Amino acid sequence: MDSNIFHNSNINKLQPNDLKVVCENIRKFLIVTILQNGGHFAGNLGVVELSVAIHHVFNSPYDKFIWDVGHQAYIHKILTNRFEEIKNIRNYGGISGFPKITESEHDAFGTGHSSTAISAAAGMAKGFQLKGENDRTVIAIVGDGALTGGMSFEALNNLVATNSNVLVIVNDNHIGIDPSTGALDRHLPEIQHSPSNLFQNLGLPYFGPIDGHNLNELILELNLIKSIKGPRVLHVKTIKGKGYEPAENEQTRWHSTNKFVKIKPATGSNQKWQELFGKTIIALSEKHSDIVGITPAMPSGSGMAEAMKMFPERFFDVGIAEQHAVTFSAGLALTGLKPYLNIYSTFLQRGYDQLIHDVALQDIPVIFCIDRAGLVGEDGPTHHGTFDISFLRIIPNIILTAPSCGNELRELMELAYQTKKPFAIRYPKGNVPAKSIDNEKLTLGKGKCVRKGKDVAVISTGIASQFAATAIALSKRNVSHFHYPFIKPFDIDLLKEIAQSHEYLITVEDGAILGGFGEMVGTELLKLGWQGNIQNLGIPDNFIEHGANEELYKVCGYSEAQIAQVIEHYYS
Amino acid sequence: MDSNIFHNSNINKLQPNDLKVVCENIRKFLIVTILQNGGHFAGNLGVVELSVAIHHVFNSPYDKFIWDVGHQAYIHKILTNRFEEIKNIRNYGGISGFPKITESEHDAFGTGHSSTAISAAAGMAKGFQLKGENDRTVIAIVGDGALTGGMSFEALNNLVATNSNVLVIVNDNHIGIDPSTGALDRHLPEIQHSPSNLFQNLGLPYFGPIDGHNLNELILELNLIKSIKGPRVLHVKTIKGKGYEPAENEQTRWHSTNKFVKIKPATGSNQKWQELFGKTIIALSEKHSDIVGITPAMPSGSGMAEAMKMFPERFFDVGIAEQHAVTFSAGLALTGLKPYLNIYSTFLQRGYDQLIHDVALQDIPVIFCIDRAGLVGEDGPTHHGTFDISFLRIIPNIILTAPSCGNELRELMELAYQTKKPFAIRYPKGNVPAKSIDNEKLTLGKGKCVRKGKDVAVISTGIASQFAATAIALSKRNVSHFHYPFIKPFDIDLLKEIAQSHEYLITVEDGAILGGFGEMVGTELLKLGWQGNIQNLGIPDNFIEHGANEELYKVCGYSEAQIAQVIEHYYS
Repeated sequence: MDSNIFHNSNINKLQPNDLKVVCENIRKFLIVTILQNGGHFAGNLGVVELSVAIHHVFNSPYDKFIWDVGHQAYIHKILTNRFEEIKNIRNYGGISGFPKITESEHDAFGTGHSSTAISAAAGMAKGFQLKGENDRTVIAIVGDGALTGGMSFEALNNLVATNSNVLVIVNDNHIGIDPSTGALDRHLPEIQHSPSNLFQNLGLPYFGPIDGHNLNELILELNLIKSIKGPRVLHVKTIKGKGYEPAENEQTRWHSTNKFVKIKPATGSNQKWQELFGKTIIALSEKHSDIVGITPAMPSGSGMAEAMKMFPERFFDVGIAEQHAVTFSAGLALTGLKPYLNIYSTFLQRGYDQLIHDVALQDIPVIFCIDRAGLVGEDGPTHHGTFDISFLRIIPNIILTAPSCGNELRELMELAYQTKKPFAIRYPKGNVPAKSIDNEKLTLGKGKCVRKGKDVAVISTGIASQFAATAIALSKRNVSHFHYPFIKPFDIDLLKEIAQSHEYLITVEDGAILGGFGEMVGTELLKLGWQGNIQNLGIPDNFIEHGANEELYKVCGYSEAQIAQVIEHYYS
Repeated sequence: MDSNIFHNSNINKLQPNDLKVVCENIRKFLIVTILQNGGHFAGNLGVVELSVAIHHVFNSPYDKFIWDVGHQAYIHKILTNRFEEIKNIRNYGGISGFPKITESEHDAFGTGHSSTAISAAAGMAKGFQLKGENDRTVIAIVGDGALTGGMSFEALNNLVATNSNVLVIVNDNHIGIDPSTGALDRHLPEIQHSPSNLFQNLGLPYFGPIDGHNLNELILELNLIKSIKGPRVLHVKTIKGKGYEPAENEQTRWHSTNKFVKIKPATGSNQKWQELFGKTIIALSEKHSDIVGITPAMPSGSGMAEAMKMFPERFFDVGIAEQHAVTFSAGLALTGLKPYLNIYSTFLQRGYDQLIHDVALQDIPVIFCIDRAGLVGEDGPTHHGTFDISFLRIIPNIILTAPSCGNELRELMELAYQTKKPFAIRYPKGNVPAKSIDNEKLTLGKGKCVRKGKDVAVISTGIASQFAATAIALSKRNVSHFHYPFIKPFDIDLLKEIAQSHEYLITVEDGAILGGFGEMVGTELLKLGWQGNIQNLGIPDNFIEHGANEELYKVCGYSEAQIAQVIEHYYS
């Protein structure tokens, strides 16, 4: 295939019939390439014509395209000189699966989290306007799912007031990763028959809906809209997975695909943490009728989908709405129910104020099951769950925990039910370890001595305790190992014992070093007057790129081999 | 005045004419009491009739009233057995200025931050529904300003799906603290003439608008709505400051009032930090035409109002929309402009994800002027700026600073302009100190030796450096004092010098001890192998109540006298 045809400067000049051929070729290329190499699949197939039409009518990088969430920007990348790199997308050293401003001048704004595009577009367009460049159009391409995120509404509400050259394209495919929910999802299909719609209510000129797979219609409409300046909305209907039947039929399953050959970590079981969460929440819900479940638009990703089917009355997908999810859970808890809110670590940042102000301040027993904590691999820096230990352990009233194995996840989910406190359980992406590092049952607030050695001790939490156990086995030195399933409350008695009998300490965590578990251990040691040598391993103070986790652990310096090396250093 | 008449069980039984008398008495009482004792003023005068009508028609605490933001709940407090306590509201040991679940069974949900009420109400109503108590009505009373917060929209979008017994009362007075802005503010007045309005488009039955000062109309309408179950919206028009002419005419000025007699801290100047920010941003904007200013609905509180008048093209009030404010600023910065985003510390929690994901990750030079950092006094735990040092210093790429005096605030605001990085400046509520602790100019990333003593050193940051300087002057010991205007990047060279020559260290900060500046100092000392004694002073690991800051510093243990005591301990 001649990749030149995919370059945006050519797309500008091509005639409609040639553009159709381009679309066909792109779709074929995507199907073959993503099925083989992995990546976000169905969403990209849904915006082939839209991407080509935008690049044909508008002029990137003079005009700016901001892809909300951004996993649907593969075609945009193909059209802007990254055709060859798509094969290596999401791999370490390869291009990102999301738009990235350092990757190309055509990536106007880095995305990954939902609902940021309209705000960024409003700012950029206002900036151009102030500089006298109001002819530049800033286009935010936003899915209907992403519109439910409150941030989108904040931006839409402000858009009329800023009055600059923003085009919001609503990519309405009736689905995020899972099917969209809520009032907006009911409103969008009815919009043709509404006397006035939501966008018009917000003072925005509205165009559409049009068929997002009809290239001629798209180009006609975009050319018309281009001539108008100021904020306006174009409503485009698309089909996620368009052109690949299995994906059209099962859109959630085909949201993204893995590589055909996948390396399974040697220590992994066949069960994902998410599957175990799903089974456990079902078992607990069968036992306790007061359990309720909440997910902000991640039923399948979080493993809650099955429970939702079994207990439709008690399990809620509230949409892409992390803020609402947290406070909705607080409301449920105040009526005596036991809410389990499943939320990805990186998205909990969206509900941080609600966690502090609505939950912790009022000491309301909401149970946070924090999925994707620590490094998440191929999704990269927008999705790594780097900061949660640091930003949660500082909040009063919270119990903060991190299991090292499936048994501990189950035990913590049960313990959370009994404990009438805000309770957070952080666990990673990927497979549950095949073995536990010990057989001891959990006790609230207590750390565990996994291995009694001398002089050198490793203190670890969460999945990093597995890395540490393997490293110690590798090292063959007589090293002690202590595992802290509870980060808060912190087991200070155990630390006193450790401090008395060890001169050299290593902390390991799958999270930021700054403000993290290791720093907390250090702070306590200093208070105890301990005079030894300590090294904190974890995620360093920079944003970590995308790639397989095995690569990234090495980049950060807490792979099993590296922990073993640090141990060895103490002996040499 | 017979306070019994104000009890909610009586209000239920009274006839409309008697209720009018109750309203008159409450209004008189409020005017006299708040003018004398201070507190939120105009907002409460606007909801006298509404509060009385709700308590008349519905049955608290069986029905639940959730007051969004909550500073307008004084009448609700009066009607629920707290008539006498209003005189002492917001004082240390007195009742809170906001609803508080530990204060009364009638306070269904603690509020303070905007836009939480509909989410909490949705959760609570769903909980009642699951328990077979769907006859209980959960009422969220939400101002039109609070509706612009994205969280409100997330909740409205989800409300139809949850389908439980929630009544949203929109208290439309066209103003928050400052006048409301944005599309919603234009839509609400036109709603009578719209073919379909925002609420209807979100699938919600809509009633109104009705006159919120017409008690008969309110009672009639509420009784009608009470008989309907499920989510619905009542639109009520009120006048902020109603019944007190000066407040009706100048609503922003009369949003809250101070006590007539106010104790001015001995060390304070006559200038507020906010006023100094306001003057400095004007001076900088006159010099640099590329500066833009952003505030999420706090023009007057932040001191930005004057700049907004002078440079209406370049200064933006984006509404109660912290998430949007952060990413809108990022968009502006990408066009080469220099955004100064003024945001209260406690509200920055709302924009935390955006700060990480949209600003820091992309290393975009947004300047965060973080107002109300540290303890804020009478507004209490919902408003203290406790956690920002801890949650910001862990984020890569950020420069985090805290001035100790007005000169340093000015210098930092200038330095931020020059420095092409995300740049945060945290400063407190209240008056700028009358004197600087030293005369040295700032250098990026450098700490300052304020006083060279021996053995014992105090290391402090921000306003706490003033407390430390006073404490050292009090103590008369030969104590060293180091001030860190830069928390990140951290001046490790200076710490090495300190560590070499001091055995006893005290850190002081106006912020959380956990994860804060002092813990960071400790972490670095441990790495240096320092073997001495350190004590971290700051806000302990619990939520701090409301009261005058002078009281609260004592509660936390970092008042000037207490710092002096800790110094003295080291010598005894």
